[in-house]
Amino acid sequence: MNALERMITEKGVVIGEDILKVDMFLNHQIDVKLIQQMGVDFYEHFKDRPITKVLTIEASGIAIACFTALLFDVPVVFGKKGYHKNVGSNVYSAKVYSFTKGVSYDITVMKDYLTEKDKVLFVDDFLANGAAAEGMMQIIAQAGATLQGIGIAIEKGFQEGGDKLRAKGIDLYSLAIVDKMEAGRIILREQNT
Amino acid sequence: MNALERMITEKGVVIGEDILKVDMFLNHQIDVKLIQQMGVDFYEHFKDRPITKVLTIEASGIAIACFTALLFDVPVVFGKKGYHKNVGSNVYSAKVYSFTKGVSYDITVMKDYLTEKDKVLFVDDFLANGAAAEGMMQIIAQAGATLQGIGIAIEKGFQEGGDKLRAKGIDLYSLAIVDKMEAGRIILREQNT
Repeated sequence: MNALERMITEKGVVIGEDILKVDMFLNHQIDVKLIQQMGVDFYEHFKDRPITKVLTIEASGIAIACFTALLFDVPVVFGKKGYHKNVGSNVYSAKVYSFTKGVSYDITVMKDYLTEKDKVLFVDDFLANGAAAEGMMQIIAQAGATLQGIGIAIEKGFQEGGDKLRAKGIDLYSLAIVDKMEAGRIILREQNT
Repeated sequence: MNALERMITEKGVVIGEDILKVDMFLNHQIDVKLIQQMGVDFYEHFKDRPITKVLTIEASGIAIACFTALLFDVPVVFGKKGYHKNVGSNVYSAKVYSFTKGVSYDITVMKDYLTEKDKVLFVDDFLANGAAAEGMMQIIAQAGATLQGIGIAIEKGFQEGGDKLRAKGIDLYSLAIVDKMEAGRIILREQNT
């Protein structure tokens, strides 16, 4: 068990059948040593790739992205969330449907900060159906940049996002995969980490 | 000149009379080594205070808060921004008027993550009229916590926020103070750092 898996087991709270509340260390209050360790883990996994930029989405992804990017010695760029009618011509954008909230929102990245030369590591706090990751992949494609890999803190293994991305041949590395939540219990997939 | 002041001088772009565009290293793309250095500078200034929590506001404040909190070995809590009708009874909240955007928004912090025992360092990327800082001070007061100090990356010295907070006796430490922006030039206040 890695540090994140231990923390989920000890402190994570299951609400209903598919909401995992981890805002005591990840989404609202941040355990910075834990997040720093995530950066180390992502670096270890992706360090042989020629990463030039770590991409994430505001807000919870930013801390994870920063500790990862520090080790690669590259900048972070975070996609901004908004509900825009016109996103403007100086940005790349993608529409993402949030199943949790039941609404669509736009992610935007300014063209200045993502170019065809960039080799991107995308990191985020959660992966469920994969809508946010797919949106970010559209933005990476619009920029002509290359996706090198995806690092996720918590993957919901009982939703389809992870399988879909792996089926595309993407190097997806999730630090913790929740296979099931039942009767308040969190069942993690065993991984060799 | 410290690292942030050099970066502002080299890369900051003045738009109109009062907008300083720094999204190439602070607000959208993040120069993580620069932000890490900000954390070191804030730690040096506030290290004799018994800080138990670093507070900030999503999204741009999160990176600064994390690198600061790491050195204090305490958690970060970030206030969430939203436009809520009912913010709920499990949160502290304050209404903040954004002069830049011409709208009011709510900042909320869950009661679980801020208590009367907390001694708070509030950090943020910008200080202008001080509305966000005042909102966070209301939340700190609601929780019965104690504000130990405020660390700001860029203070707009030609707006009143900094003077108002200092007049209240708050230990406000700004890494860079912009005194004037004219004809595309950025004039920084000389500081002994």
